[in-house]
Amino acid sequence: MFQLVITALDWFGVAVFAVTGALVASRKQMDIFGFALLATVTGIGGGSMRDLLLGVPVFWVGQPLYVGVCVMVAAVVFFTAHIPESRYRLLMWLDAVGLSFFCVVGASKGLDTGAGPFIAVVMAVITASFGGIIRDVIGGESTLLLRKEIYVTAALAGAVVFVASRGLGIADTIGAIAGFATCFVIRGFGLRYRLALPSYKTRAGVPPKN
Amino acid sequence: MFQLVITALDWFGVAVFAVTGALVASRKQMDIFGFALLATVTGIGGGSMRDLLLGVPVFWVGQPLYVGVCVMVAAVVFFTAHIPESRYRLLMWLDAVGLSFFCVVGASKGLDTGAGPFIAVVMAVITASFGGIIRDVIGGESTLLLRKEIYVTAALAGAVVFVASRGLGIADTIGAIAGFATCFVIRGFGLRYRLALPSYKTRAGVPPKN
Amino acid sequence: MFQLVITALDWFGVAVFAVTGALVASRKQMDIFGFALLATVTGIGGGSMRDLLLGVPVFWVGQPLYVGVCVMVAAVVFFTAHIPESRYRLLMWLDAVGLSFFCVVGASKGLDTGAGPFIAVVMAVITASFGGIIRDVIGGESTLLLRKEIYVTAALAGAVVFVASRGLGIADTIGAIAGFATCFVIRGFGLRYRLALPSYKTRAGVPPKN
Repeated sequence: MFQLVITALDWFGVAVFAVTGALVASRKQMDIFGFALLATVTGIGGGSMRDLLLGVPVFWVGQPLYVGVCVMVAAVVFFTAHIPESRYRLLMWLDAVGLSFFCVVGASKGLDTGAGPFIAVVMAVITASFGGIIRDVIGGESTLLLRKEIYVTAALAGAVVFVASRGLGIADTIGAIAGFATCFVIRGFGLRYRLALPSYKTRAGVPPKN
Repeated sequence: MFQLVITALDWFGVAVFAVTGALVASRKQMDIFGFALLATVTGIGGGSMRDLLLGVPVFWVGQPLYVGVCVMVAAVVFFTAHIPESRYRLLMWLDAVGLSFFCVVGASKGLDTGAGPFIAVVMAVITASFGGIIRDVIGGESTLLLRKEIYVTAALAGAVVFVASRGLGIADTIGAIAGFATCFVIRGFGLRYRLALPSYKTRAGVPPKN
Repeated sequence: MFQLVITALDWFGVAVFAVTGALVASRKQMDIFGFALLATVTGIGGGSMRDLLLGVPVFWVGQPLYVGVCVMVAAVVFFTAHIPESRYRLLMWLDAVGLSFFCVVGASKGLDTGAGPFIAVVMAVITASFGGIIRDVIGGESTLLLRKEIYVTAALAGAVVFVASRGLGIADTIGAIAGFATCFVIRGFGLRYRLALPSYKTRAGVPPKN
């Protein structure tokens, strides 16, 4: 049952992230294969990186439908991109849903392969953020690391909640819901109120000693 | 025999792709180690990504001559880059040969590790395109995904032909030749007539409802 | 004993490289999670790439403190970045220490997994340079491959000395010191005297035949 929920979340997260990749392709006016490639690396890039680092089989190699979903998403966006573009805020909310799914899925996969809680949280952050980083690097966009909104923080918090709840012996389903909700609420507040963590400000260097 | 042909194609593809990496280094006026690094990541990057994702040993770790060939290519180009630069069209045709080799090699390796036909085609596209993508990202060039010529399409078509021919029980040698020819002809038409797939054009968004 | 030395070098190298990643984050005025991510990919990116390519478990997955060190370094730099920035030359020297460590560590790990001497040298160069390349790509800086100072060359020389000394039956501790010293001295000369290898200069193409 829990595995089923995790799998369902994974699919939804992949599809939503693929939409964001295809929209970058539309901004760059690529052809349909550019759409398919960017949608696919965004949708499955984070999970692929996680599986490679954990040393487990990459999730989509044994289940090709993941790539199929990304390609289908790319095709749909290619013909309809003017719609989600005019609904950019909606897309950001869908992306928040994907982010919240992926931080729980990533943490869960990390724990299942025997990694400790700290590494599980790292894997959650990688799953949630690397697809977007690869998308921005390949698409030539300024990376999401620079965005002035709470993003990685939300994934981190959601993963910590999920890992802690398993550590406390709480049922996985409840832990997953709590982790998802934590991430989504934090990211949602960031989106709604344009919250940002304080960023580094250049200060004058230490004055030279005389 | 077939394995020998695949191996020979692989070497040629690596060498040709390494030339394109070294030429990017020459445009950026790097030193010889910049040449060697860009030539190497371009020559073996796509195949490395494929092997990592398939979970098989990376092909050049057990056969260091692949890296050796890339380094030698880089050294030759470092001293002679003015020659191929003045023959850019020739280089594009060599690159088309490498692309056609790699799509067959990638599909063949995918099938040999037990992947299904769809994943084999995905691996072919990764083998054929990721070396160039890494080259463009590291070298700071606009990525090949943006090129207005048929490229990934050709690799995709060649891989489909090879995978289909094995599925139909046709001898691998014939399937490889057919796959290579398909990719090369499509890419060649693209080069010769500057064919491009239609790219996404921005349209006005859905007008807001009153 | 030797293993202990290698491990100590590895920690120091990771921390120093993490500082350089965090400084790029400070130049881009990221928030603290941007600092943590850039510090971490820079500190452990090269070693991760090496382990993935060698097909051995990624070193930090079983030893989470590596990531912990990177995150701590990021937090310290976030609040004190004006200090090392005003001491950029000092940082370059620390980076040279990290480079010298990593070329020995990378070559040693390559040999230990049964790779031949050539591949061990390749792994040394990957360990020493890929963290910085990933940092520059994600951070949007022009890549270190373009720097007009001897960098990869130094790592290459240090690795060759270490691998050769093991091949000659010299004790690993002495070989490691010799490799470290070779890399550090070459990089140090490059820094001190702004030495650079000759870079490729565009020449006129071959004139067309009449």
